[in-house]
Amino acid sequence: MRHSPLPFPLHHRRRLARALAAIALLSGAACNSGPNEDGGGAGVSASLNDLMKERGLDESNVSAALKTYTPTGVHDPYIMFASGGQSGQVLVIGIPSMRILKYIAVFTPEPWQGYGYGDETNTILAAGQRDGRTLSWGDSHHPALSETNGDYDGQFLFINDKANARIAVIDLKDFATKQIVMSGLIQSDHGGTFVTPNTEYVVEGAQYPAPLGGGYAPIERYAEDYKGAVIFWKFDREKGRIDRAKSFAMELPPYMQDLTDAGKLVSDGWVFLNSLNTELSIGGTLEGRPPLESGASQNDMDYMHIIPWRRAAEVAGMAGKTKEIAGMRVIPLDVSLSEGLLYFVGEPKSPHGVDVTPDGSQMVVAGKLDTHGTVYSFAKIKAQIDQKKFEAKDRYGVPILSFKDSIDGQVELGLGPLHTQYIGDGMALTSLFLESAVVRWSVKDLKVIDKIPVHYNVGHIAAAEGDTVSPDGKYLVAMNKWAIDRFQPVGPLLPQNFQLVDVSGSQMQLLYDMPLPLGEPHYAQIIKADKLHPEDIYKPAGVNPVTAQHDPDTVTAGKERIERRADGVHVFMSAVRSHFTPDIIRVKEGDTVHLHITNVEQAHDATHGFTIDLYNVHQSLEPGKHVNASFVADVPGVFPMYCTEFCSALHLEMAGYLLVEPKEGGAPAPGVAPAPGDAPAPGDAPAPGDAPAPGDAPTPDAPAPGSE
Amino acid sequence: MRHSPLPFPLHHRRRLARALAAIALLSGAACNSGPNEDGGGAGVSASLNDLMKERGLDESNVSAALKTYTPTGVHDPYIMFASGGQSGQVLVIGIPSMRILKYIAVFTPEPWQGYGYGDETNTILAAGQRDGRTLSWGDSHHPALSETNGDYDGQFLFINDKANARIAVIDLKDFATKQIVMSGLIQSDHGGTFVTPNTEYVVEGAQYPAPLGGGYAPIERYAEDYKGAVIFWKFDREKGRIDRAKSFAMELPPYMQDLTDAGKLVSDGWVFLNSLNTELSIGGTLEGRPPLESGASQNDMDYMHIIPWRRAAEVAGMAGKTKEIAGMRVIPLDVSLSEGLLYFVGEPKSPHGVDVTPDGSQMVVAGKLDTHGTVYSFAKIKAQIDQKKFEAKDRYGVPILSFKDSIDGQVELGLGPLHTQYIGDGMALTSLFLESAVVRWSVKDLKVIDKIPVHYNVGHIAAAEGDTVSPDGKYLVAMNKWAIDRFQPVGPLLPQNFQLVDVSGSQMQLLYDMPLPLGEPHYAQIIKADKLHPEDIYKPAGVNPVTAQHDPDTVTAGKERIERRADGVHVFMSAVRSHFTPDIIRVKEGDTVHLHITNVEQAHDATHGFTIDLYNVHQSLEPGKHVNASFVADVPGVFPMYCTEFCSALHLEMAGYLLVEPKEGGAPAPGVAPAPGDAPAPGDAPAPGDAPAPGDAPTPDAPAPGSE
Repeated sequence: MRHSPLPFPLHHRRRLARALAAIALLSGAACNSGPNEDGGGAGVSASLNDLMKERGLDESNVSAALKTYTPTGVHDPYIMFASGGQSGQVLVIGIPSMRILKYIAVFTPEPWQGYGYGDETNTILAAGQRDGRTLSWGDSHHPALSETNGDYDGQFLFINDKANARIAVIDLKDFATKQIVMSGLIQSDHGGTFVTPNTEYVVEGAQYPAPLGGGYAPIERYAEDYKGAVIFWKFDREKGRIDRAKSFAMELPPYMQDLTDAGKLVSDGWVFLNSLNTELSIGGTLEGRPPLESGASQNDMDYMHIIPWRRAAEVAGMAGKTKEIAGMRVIPLDVSLSEGLLYFVGEPKSPHGVDVTPDGSQMVVAGKLDTHGTVYSFAKIKAQIDQKKFEAKDRYGVPILSFKDSIDGQVELGLGPLHTQYIGDGMALTSLFLESAVVRWSVKDLKVIDKIPVHYNVGHIAAAEGDTVSPDGKYLVAMNKWAIDRFQPVGPLLPQNFQLVDVSGSQMQLLYDMPLPLGEPHYAQIIKADKLHPEDIYKPAGVNPVTAQHDPDTVTAGKERIERRADGVHVFMSAVRSHFTPDIIRVKEGDTVHLHITNVEQAHDATHGFTIDLYNVHQSLEPGKHVNASFVADVPGVFPMYCTEFCSALHLEMAGYLLVEPKEGGAPAPGVAPAPGDAPAPGDAPAPGDAPAPGDAPTPDAPAPGSE
Repeated sequence: MRHSPLPFPLHHRRRLARALAAIALLSGAACNSGPNEDGGGAGVSASLNDLMKERGLDESNVSAALKTYTPTGVHDPYIMFASGGQSGQVLVIGIPSMRILKYIAVFTPEPWQGYGYGDETNTILAAGQRDGRTLSWGDSHHPALSETNGDYDGQFLFINDKANARIAVIDLKDFATKQIVMSGLIQSDHGGTFVTPNTEYVVEGAQYPAPLGGGYAPIERYAEDYKGAVIFWKFDREKGRIDRAKSFAMELPPYMQDLTDAGKLVSDGWVFLNSLNTELSIGGTLEGRPPLESGASQNDMDYMHIIPWRRAAEVAGMAGKTKEIAGMRVIPLDVSLSEGLLYFVGEPKSPHGVDVTPDGSQMVVAGKLDTHGTVYSFAKIKAQIDQKKFEAKDRYGVPILSFKDSIDGQVELGLGPLHTQYIGDGMALTSLFLESAVVRWSVKDLKVIDKIPVHYNVGHIAAAEGDTVSPDGKYLVAMNKWAIDRFQPVGPLLPQNFQLVDVSGSQMQLLYDMPLPLGEPHYAQIIKADKLHPEDIYKPAGVNPVTAQHDPDTVTAGKERIERRADGVHVFMSAVRSHFTPDIIRVKEGDTVHLHITNVEQAHDATHGFTIDLYNVHQSLEPGKHVNASFVADVPGVFPMYCTEFCSALHLEMAGYLLVEPKEGGAPAPGVAPAPGDAPAPGDAPAPGDAPAPGDAPTPDAPAPGSE
């Protein structure tokens, strides 16, 4: 029986014919050859439609699947760097496959990477300590890729720690943290890290006001003695490190500075910070005052801070213009006012964030408690400043520009706008937290285009190269805070949900839900993958990643040795598949052991690990890497050491022993060690007040807060 | 122009017609309505073929994409629990989407979950310490789901720490670690954790021999004084905890016991451990002896250990049959021999693992350095034991069965066979490390079926319910150790590569590459998701997850208060969107502060966090959860506290202050705190011997090994 001709023109018929051929293959028609690399053939015997039915996929799902699926060996074209939130780490995610490629340790010790487990990474962490207290975690919020001429250059990444007010530098040559700097000036941050267009400075804005430099003042003197600040950390690109001596800060009024963005192109040289709590509310839920959440939400406007940072840097370099607080040059507020370094303009209403457009001519502030996106004009703001045309001054004397005269307009975006990213052609995306949606709109035309629902309650969003001078568009990631029902239940602590959206077409298309298995990312940046040029190995063998230099204690094959010196036993060890040399270390109880270990391999991915059981030492030894680690052999006995990376077929045999001979007459005979204690079983709830008190054994040392 | 009829039978025509309709929709033909939940419509305007071409996908890729893609809100049907290796954690992964859902903290403090950052989780970690040393990481290898009648029951998960010879219990009601037990008997483990078919015992086998109970013996007395062991930890299912008092161990010869598997059904009551190094090699690469990797690989056979654990448990309960070492009842080797508790049979050659078949009648040992899989018959082994028909005894007097009479046969599998999983119908999958492949074979017929290449160098594999009495088949995950070129470069430390394979068809099909962003999983188990029944919230509000009980210090809304007692300041605080009550805490320098915080919410996913800046306290507060945490307010000043989870639109306003009033006359004025120190910049390499020595400030306390 003949069928009527297919109702499509010829070119569609050809396309359909090709598609039919594809389906035929999927339908299990005879396939060529035997198993190929992907195991095709009869293993793909279901037709497209059968597969769709079997997995409950509709056509838009199929489209999304094909837009995200990434076959073995194919690399993602975009890489997203996201903060890890309370995990204290940075995530590296491939787009559009939405696969997490790495968690980079930053503020929290992490053993797989050997970060903070005995070697010189301990010095990186130590530099971030304060008041003699170990800080063994961080609340990382905003990663900032280094920029050149306002474009990501793929060389460095900066990240802040909100809980301890410090920042870190990650080198993208080896995706490892190299430096943590703690100002000691502020007690918390949020408006960091954000970079100026050539990474001259890495900006860190304070959040919750407090006396600068630490120290006590009664909260009743909040308006007088509690202050905000913004720190301009000078970045030395050649050294790849923050230069503390060339950094400076500005004292700000105690409005909770929130987020920062640097101007670019026409606004290069200026930086903008939004803020909230012009009300100067301090909460007091048990003291008869309203909570901060309502106290800080009374006024219709808060203040966007406008700062000419190049001018501020000049002023900071002048004699008599700064105070030294916590070892930092701080420009006092009165100097900023006399030097014209700080201006305010109203922004509605407890807003979240300020995002400069790609050409630098405008800034968008998202309303948070106001449904508008407000579009400010840099030219209009600059004109008022140049003409010293101020509408008012705040209680501290800071000039306030006219809101009306500073904006190009407002757009009603939706409920709870938070964060804006750009996608080119004068277009923007803004997250709507309360509405659980992302709105696409034209900043140029002040007009909403469309919206897409997300799941659920989206905070920040990231678009490809979306806060640079040249956004790519294409992809949006909605960083949703509530996952609720999106994933298989894993207990009361749910993952966050990153949703990938295709924004390249006339309609936005939801592509993929990616759970966050660890941490709570706040903010992310997406860079073209080909801008990244990490190294595959450390070469030549013997590089110490902390100093980025060939280590003086590097060990070459054949030169391994053990030396007893005045300061202890020095072990010069090589690691290669599949043995350590030496693999037997003989010391006496009480000896300080100094390990110098080089992975002499140069093959890509030939990574080893090193541990000594029960001594809490762990090193990750990538090809060519050298580590130095010291510990005191204070417990006598026999301690296996082994390679912790499955490096070879004989990986289990890559082992040896640390033998700690007891002091004379002091050795417990084998087998009489006391039994370790037990944690309370259910039903044996500790009595109130019995929680581990500081000073009680066996409270572990460092992660416990402040235990003496 | 008419076209010839399509050359397919009618049912295929109908199927094609449906497929054509699907393509038509994908081709951008007019779509119904506006944006739907997935943003379909014109956003899916490319034809199937265009999409394939644009992304470089062939038909097998499309098939794989459709077999793994999981739309928003759809849950995975299988869940994989994988060890985290040196991260010290357990991973939860959805299959077939291959998305990581959670990293569960176990041996390593983890701040996002608030694990080891000030509350009673510190007591869990403290119980795993030894010799007064803080152990702040673990090398987790083998997760074991609790079993009932040889099937996963989804209630508990156990995991070992190879580096510190201890195990942990995770409760799958809330996917949180509840207990760590450290025997103090052995210095390392590997053959753990593995459970008996009704989780009567959780088995932990030692790996690198050492004097039992710790203590020193010269390595020259390896054969005499260094011992192996296997620990049978008694599990109290009702309490959800290991019962140390009812646990026992058996002394074993110093062959490196490797992996364990418990018999089931016909072999229920027996446990099998493979081992290596019958040569008793001790390495000595700087002492003129061959490295362990060759020393341990000389002999053609090593010994599989065969133990009737029920009988051993009876013997352990008899007077005079055990020695107490490190507080544990240990059956000495001579007692095991006289009571018939230990038998050997040869296994070629430095093998890795022993895997009991679903019906319990056979055990497969993978050769590692031998290309065979060896299939042992439990009936044949049992017959020789019952008849006391031994071929020989080893140097310690352990009876050795005849290899020939113990096996059903051997199959040549390939290069470097390591690990076997079962997929039903008498079929098995075995990983081939050196060949980078997985072989599918019939244990029943002793015949290879087919192989699939994997990328690269696969260690363990996991099949759905693959080591239970009723495997599901369907999915295989190859846990590849070397990723090399599979993913976008992220520096010298590469992720591992989990590859999902469809084993349901006549040919195996590679589906998906999943990078491991943190840690090095060794082993995993895959369970049907519907066997898991975690809770969504803690209810009613006020549950302490560590004790699993309503906490006596629970805080209800309206009953918040601050009380000064003899032992310090007790703060009874509630957390709810979006404020803490109290949000101002006033103490004096030196006060001990006891926090009692309840998240009074009961809404799913209404999680809060809690921190006090610079005091290294962080809590995760899931709905209904209660935590108790203590610290000493030893630094005066003003310390913001805030909710670290983005819980609501006014999340940033969910904040307050800890005010620490300085002691009389002792307060530094604001602004004069000394500048914190700096880490060495590149070029300022520390001199040899200048690595942070123990006792030097500002070395951080706990992650540094043994610093005094």
